[in-house]
This record gives sequence, structure tokens and C-alpha cells, in this order.
Amino acid sequence: MRQVGILGIGQTKIDEHWDRSLRDLGVDAIRAAMEDGGRITCDGLFVGNMLSGISNHQDLLGSLLSDWSDMQPVEAVKVEAACASGGAAFRSALMAVASGELDSAMVVGVEKMTDSGSAQITAALATAADADNEVDQGVSFVGLNALIMQRYMHEYGWKHTDFAPFSINSHANAVHNPCARLRNRITLEQYQKAVMVSAPINILDASPIGDGAAAILLVPIEDLPDRSKIIVCGSASFTDSLAIHDRSDAITLRAAYRSAKSAYQQAKVQANNIDVFELHDAFSIMAALSLEACGFAEQGQGPRLALDGEIEPDGRIPICTRGGLKARGHPVGATGVYQLVELVQQLRGECGATQVEDAMTGMAQNIGGSGSTIVTHILKKTVI
Amino acid sequence: MRQVGILGIGQTKIDEHWDRSLRDLGVDAIRAAMEDGGRITCDGLFVGNMLSGISNHQDLLGSLLSDWSDMQPVEAVKVEAACASGGAAFRSALMAVASGELDSAMVVGVEKMTDSGSAQITAALATAADADNEVDQGVSFVGLNALIMQRYMHEYGWKHTDFAPFSINSHANAVHNPCARLRNRITLEQYQKAVMVSAPINILDASPIGDGAAAILLVPIEDLPDRSKIIVCGSASFTDSLAIHDRSDAITLRAAYRSAKSAYQQAKVQANNIDVFELHDAFSIMAALSLEACGFAEQGQGPRLALDGEIEPDGRIPICTRGGLKARGHPVGATGVYQLVELVQQLRGECGATQVEDAMTGMAQNIGGSGSTIVTHILKKTVI
Repeated sequence: MRQVGILGIGQTKIDEHWDRSLRDLGVDAIRAAMEDGGRITCDGLFVGNMLSGISNHQDLLGSLLSDWSDMQPVEAVKVEAACASGGAAFRSALMAVASGELDSAMVVGVEKMTDSGSAQITAALATAADADNEVDQGVSFVGLNALIMQRYMHEYGWKHTDFAPFSINSHANAVHNPCARLRNRITLEQYQKAVMVSAPINILDASPIGDGAAAILLVPIEDLPDRSKIIVCGSASFTDSLAIHDRSDAITLRAAYRSAKSAYQQAKVQANNIDVFELHDAFSIMAALSLEACGFAEQGQGPRLALDGEIEPDGRIPICTRGGLKARGHPVGATGVYQLVELVQQLRGECGATQVEDAMTGMAQNIGGSGSTIVTHILKKTVI
Repeated sequence: MRQVGILGIGQTKIDEHWDRSLRDLGVDAIRAAMEDGGRITCDGLFVGNMLSGISNHQDLLGSLLSDWSDMQPVEAVKVEAACASGGAAFRSALMAVASGELDSAMVVGVEKMTDSGSAQITAALATAADADNEVDQGVSFVGLNALIMQRYMHEYGWKHTDFAPFSINSHANAVHNPCARLRNRITLEQYQKAVMVSAPINILDASPIGDGAAAILLVPIEDLPDRSKIIVCGSASFTDSLAIHDRSDAITLRAAYRSAKSAYQQAKVQANNIDVFELHDAFSIMAALSLEACGFAEQGQGPRLALDGEIEPDGRIPICTRGGLKARGHPVGATGVYQLVELVQQLRGECGATQVEDAMTGMAQNIGGSGSTIVTHILKKTVI
């Protein structure tokens, strides 16, 4: 297979976009990525989205968005893997270009969630868990993550407050990201006093939903401008049991471990070569588990990295440098593409106050369900 | 890219499966395809499904089905293109194996529709049309197809009764397919007197929904048994505008034309080399339009082929030889995989009373929306 790189990126602000439809948001991001890449069309479209059928009464987003972004009649499909839809769509687009089937591909992650009421969104998000064996018992998606966090705290002796640095870091970084939904700093005291959602997860452990779209234009590396090339060096996706109770270990992200390991091998790097890591902090517990599964911390020691400041932009392994899911916002099916757009911004050196110095190699990890589908990508910058 | 062939097929009967869940049906089809192919696992799973989020409160079918069919931790995603989801998932699996990324891939199309009420299913199916610009005006999905049929009859002077042979042929063929939902012959008189759904489409122009799953195991052709190889020789997908009123011509399936043309070129064949054609007769009008777009009839002359008996198993271009969508049934996201399973049955010579003699080259065409995403595949049998 041939090597593939990133020619263009685009994104909208994540917000309650009362004046923009799902189609508007998707087209905005696609057009921005086209403009950034200096193209006006491409050979195929891969849409990452989870909830459009339920929340927007609209399926067939491939046709919709290829049409409204003037790409029609090119091939276009939607790829769904719950909150990992964006990463999975990116991987599909990557394979299409790497195989030679297409000479360019656009991936867009898009979600329009805030038109629905909270009860509807809670029910919709629960479709990422096992409907018959988890949700039917009355548990919500945040409830499942709360069970994981509770078990993890019990197992390793961490207190709730030990997770505060994850949320504080994400909020601090989002201040400098014009596309982030929550651009306010938070304090330890605010974190400790935040309203409970599902114990032990409080509102400052949980990422906010939102409306938004992000897009990336992929081409073979020969078609990238010479001055600096951003190349996809690793791509892997693995699954774990959908229901948490079917896993031998509820507090280890086995699919994250497998996909990171495979991506490292493909990219010929190890964890200590990763300069920046956009991980999936849908809940603060997931940030800890992701760091551990990918080899940045021993099992059970994820919070230590955060408490030591090592996850900040000048730390050993900077994470969520544009705000992460926690503060940039989590438009579920779009998130995986936002992560990769932000990684490109880091490798291009466009991140201002949260720029990771000399960032050359970055990783993005996108989690679907409570850890049941996990997609990992590694990007590298090659300067000529 | 390397050549890919079909090692195993499996399917469930299409029915109202009150005793089988979506997960059961998917696993049944996957296990049947594994058994047929003599394997117990494979490297990746691609799920074709449209409505599970709405109808079954279940997303993340990749994780669900890879887990329950003992394939976990392999990569698994859902591909959605409305009623073309099955064909699109097959194409994704094909690309994964053709590229060398995976050495084997399972595609399963699955849909569980009959647990929902008719009003809910009507609303769910309408997500395949333009929510803001078509459905918001009050039109249903069958209503859109009725507009197309009305326009076509007006333009070319056909009467409603001229479409009868499409439905009569599908029902006659389904009698011999144990997996078909409607295994009864119908007469011209029954067709003419059938209850109206949305004029001019009556109940015998329209395919029934259903619960069901079909699966196919893809491998490189080197891994196929020597005695006979069934090879994927052409694969193409194109899009048209989502809303009918955005198309320059409402009664031409431009995406079908483009995808068939590309598939013919890849397979180095022409329309007259196709021995059997599993087309997408969701409504009888779609059978006519598909035949025309793919070069089997002049524009406006599709019904003539049917009236002349040329679409029957011993005709010039046999279609819907296992019952088609009309009588086999149309579990929407699964249909594209059923079509390909049936094509394999024809090429293997397993179709008994509806076997097409000396079938060596077959085509399947899967339509999403009212013609807005169309996926075409050509399979060939090579006997050694």
C-alpha cells in the first residue's frame, strides 16, 4: 500500500448552532478543508457520524454531504462506530487512498446534537452500550462510565479529587482554541464542588455534547507540498466486548492497548517517541485508562501523570492540547476527526500558547462505547 | 490491489422473527458463512445496517457482532448508506482485503424491523430522503417513489399494469427460495386489484420489510478452493443528489449508470455478458430504471423487457431470481448482502427451479435512497 498524508484540514466551532443545520456544519468543514488543501473536489467522501438518524431524522449522509459540497457524483458512505465513528471514517478513507482505489478522499465527522432534549440525547447515547443487557437494566452511558471509575478508584486507592488535573488541563488548553465549546479555566475547588451526574462522575468529569464538524483531506504523499509533509504512519482498530460485564477486566482498555501497539509497530515508534497525544477524555477516567493502555503509565497509575503535570503542553506527554473532549466539546461522531485536525495543528506548529515544542510525532485515540471499539492513529511531520 | 473472491455465504430466512434479536440474526448469518467457508474466524467485520439506532436502540454493531460471533478483538465497523448499506459494507470489506490490510473479511448485512410499528418504520425509512427539503413537506419514502413512477408513466406512456411482470416474476421465483418472506405466486388480476399504497404504487409494486441477515466471507483468490473460484471482478459506487428535485432528471438513475459502467470496465464485460442480474426492485419502477441505466433496455423501455418475459430465469437478462426485494423481502440494510449471496448461489448452480443455465457472470446493484447512492458489483465464476 502507498503512503498517505494530510493535505487539508477544516473545522467549525463546537457550540449550540441554532442557525446551522447538520448539512451546513458538514459542508462548512469540508469546504474549509478543501480550501486549506487548495483543492475544489476529491474522489470520495467518508462521513463519521453516530446519531443523525435519531437526532436529525437523516440517514444517507454520504449522498447529502457529497451533493451539498459539490463533490457529487463521487462515492460517499457513512461509517459508524458510536463515539469512534470519526476515527473509523478516517481509517476507511485512509485505506481507500492507500490501496490506490481513490487518489484523494475527504473524511468529515459531523454531529448536530443540541436540537434534541436531554432525555432524548441520553437515550440516543445509550445506543453505544449493549441495549439488551446493559441499557435494558436502566443504566445510562454515563452510568456505565461511573461504574468503571468507581471500580478503578476502589482497585487502586485513588480519590475523586485525584482526577481533577485532567479536567483542569483540558479547560486551560481550550481557552486558546477558538473552536472549543467551553473556553473557561476551572479550579480545583470548582471541580470538587461540581454537581454530581452519576457518582463518582460529576459535571466537570464529563465532556459536553455539542454541534460541530471537522474534515480532513487525504492524498498520497507524492501529492503533498514539499515544504512539510504530515504523513499517516500508523492506523489500527480493535474491538472488545460491547458490554462491560462480558470483559475479563472492566478497567483495562484492551482494544486501546492492541490498537496502540499495532500503530506503534507500523510507525516504528514507542510510547516515549510520541510528542503529543490527543486522547478520548469523554470522562476523566477514560483519560487515565487510555494513558495506561498506551504505555505512558503503569496500570493504575494514570492519575499520577496528571497530578505531576506531565499531561500539560510542556509535560512529558501532553494530552488534550486543544481542550480535549472535556472542554473543546464532544459532538460524538465528529470527535475522532477533531482529534486528528488538532494533531495536524500541533505538527504544523499552529497552536500558540498550547503548542508542544518541536512536535514531530503525534497520536490520536478515539473510543467507541465504554471501550469496545478503539481506533488509534499516528501522524508524523517530515520536513524537507 | 490483489484479487478477492468469495469463500463462504450465509443467510437467515427473511421473516417476522419474534424469537430472534438483531444480534441473533447477525450471528446466525455470520456463523453460516464461516461454516460454508470452512473457517472459524477472520480478520475484520463490516456490518451493513441502516436502522438499528432507531429501531433497536443499538449502535456500535461492529463491536456487538464481532463479540457475539467470537471474532473479537478484530476490527469491526458499521457502514451506512440507507438501503445500499449492504452493498457499501461489502465494498468496504472488499477494499480492506484487496489492499492487503486484511487477509480475510466478513461482511454481514442485518436488519430487525418488525418490532417497530408501521408509523415508526415509515418515519425511519424516510431518513433515506432529504429530511429538510422532502420529508419536511410531508412526503414518505414510498411517496417519493410514487412521484418517480408517475412521471415515468407520463413521460413514456406506460400503464400501471405494464409493470405487473416485475412483481409476478419476483413472486414466482421466491416460491423456490426457502429464505424468502413471500413464497406465493401472484396473478395479473391480483396485481391489478391490489390495494393502493401511494398512487400509482400499490401493495404488489412494493417490497415488504422484514427481519434478516446475510453474510459473506471474502479472501484473496489464492485462498479459494481450486475447484471453482467466485471472484469479485467489478466494484463501484456513485452518488446523485439526495433530493429528487435537485436532479436534472428524476427518472434516470445516473448513479446506477455510472457505477455499472465502471464495474463493466473493471470486469472487462458489457451488459450483454451479464448472465444474471440481482437488481434493487424495492418498487417495480426501480427495476425498470435499473435495467435501463445498466444498458439492458433503452431509456423508457424497461417494462418492455418484463412484458416480453426476458427477465425470467430463462430470459435474456434474468433478474430477482431468488425473489428480489419484492418477494424475498427487503430488510433494508441487509438487502445488498442478500443480493450478493443469491448471486453466489447462481454462480454455484444451487438455485434449482430458478437456476440460470450456465451462469458464469453476475451483477448485483444496490440502491440507497431514491437513487442517491448506488453500488454495483460484478462476480465471475472461474472453473479450473
